[in-house]
Amino acid sequence: MPSFRAAVLTVSEKGARREREDLSGPALASRLQDAGFRVEARAVVPDNEEAIARELIRWADEESLDLIVTTGGTGFSPSDVTPEATLKVLDRETPGLAEAMRLSSLKKTPRAMLSRGRAGIRGATLIVNLPGSLKGALENLDAIIEALPHGLEKLRGDPSDCGG
Amino acid sequence: MPSFRAAVLTVSEKGARREREDLSGPALASRLQDAGFRVEARAVVPDNEEAIARELIRWADEESLDLIVTTGGTGFSPSDVTPEATLKVLDRETPGLAEAMRLSSLKKTPRAMLSRGRAGIRGATLIVNLPGSLKGALENLDAIIEALPHGLEKLRGDPSDCGG
Amino acid sequence: MPSFRAAVLTVSEKGARREREDLSGPALASRLQDAGFRVEARAVVPDNEEAIARELIRWADEESLDLIVTTGGTGFSPSDVTPEATLKVLDRETPGLAEAMRLSSLKKTPRAMLSRGRAGIRGATLIVNLPGSLKGALENLDAIIEALPHGLEKLRGDPSDCGG
Repeated sequence: MPSFRAAVLTVSEKGARREREDLSGPALASRLQDAGFRVEARAVVPDNEEAIARELIRWADEESLDLIVTTGGTGFSPSDVTPEATLKVLDRETPGLAEAMRLSSLKKTPRAMLSRGRAGIRGATLIVNLPGSLKGALENLDAIIEALPHGLEKLRGDPSDCGG
Repeated sequence: MPSFRAAVLTVSEKGARREREDLSGPALASRLQDAGFRVEARAVVPDNEEAIARELIRWADEESLDLIVTTGGTGFSPSDVTPEATLKVLDRETPGLAEAMRLSSLKKTPRAMLSRGRAGIRGATLIVNLPGSLKGALENLDAIIEALPHGLEKLRGDPSDCGG
Repeated sequence: MPSFRAAVLTVSEKGARREREDLSGPALASRLQDAGFRVEARAVVPDNEEAIARELIRWADEESLDLIVTTGGTGFSPSDVTPEATLKVLDRETPGLAEAMRLSSLKKTPRAMLSRGRAGIRGATLIVNLPGSLKGALENLDAIIEALPHGLEKLRGDPSDCGG
């Protein structure tokens, strides 16, 4: 597989204030590297729609990364707005990725149905919302990571037929 | 579990004209009570987007209920507009709840894929569309009721970690 | 079952330029006929949002077809815009059909989660996005075809109770 360039965005109020260690971000970066991705950026932003959107736009439009995964802010708390920020910056939603992650997590816990994560494309960048918990984030990434390279190749404009 | 305040909205043209008895509404109220919810309001409105939205807004904004379930108007009939009325009043969609209900119902009948129900949050209130049939409504509610309290606690602003 | 009127729209840049034979379109038409549908129209359009939307609108508003299936343009390629064109013309989305198709395909290949297809209603016409590959298109159609007649009867205004 060609080497895809990825970034991890941790969305956490306490993380952004350095009151809590970001466990999910480094673990996701490590998992992506194990799967062959080059992780070129990481950041922690608070639960703020503008702050989240700004980072996603910068990484997509200026850095042209292939993949951005976010962790955190996908739940029911009043401050959880990662999916809303993501929907605002997406050009084309990829609902099957979000469905597949929840479907996989539902086999472990009914609480998986509470995840409000979204996924989709901005320009040539795929953006995927993962839960904030270390366990949930890794499980969700694992549920889709095998299918991602084919999608990312297409996104780059690989003209080979896939019948999509 | 803390006691959550709930309401049941029956969407039915004939029900609103008192030409048909509302079976699903009372059955859902009873099921919610059995699960520990306090059912503080019930109403029957016709298949009218404005009428549905008005009731949802009133219960969410003025009564600050924790949960509103609707029954009816989620199908393919030209008059079925409950999901559209719901989407209009939602601040944040919770797609995993709608997916989990259909996933559960699909194990019983392929017709479950025809349900167009949505779910999401307005302010501090979770709104969930259930089918109109007594059997379908109860089955769908049963598919999510175990996971709801955790989500509703978060929605109230419970600051304990859930990693969401 | 009453005889429903259907159409098949192939979305393919090369197909529209007659540089590639349209295999999925005829195969879908044949499968629909075997299931009792009358296939009254077929067309091939390029991967262009306006061109796709125009054809969908014409078949829905002027021809009042019961069902339109599209094939192609649901993937990650920069040119894939069939779901976006479809969402623009829909009055009411039917997310359960898209979910059920992906759920069924996921049992065969993890790549199914990359399909971005949508489904929904415009006026009295149901529109369903299928993948572009022959195999994927037929598998997806097979996953929903049994449930369609009930939905299409309701869409026509059949007043019998379905509890939806």
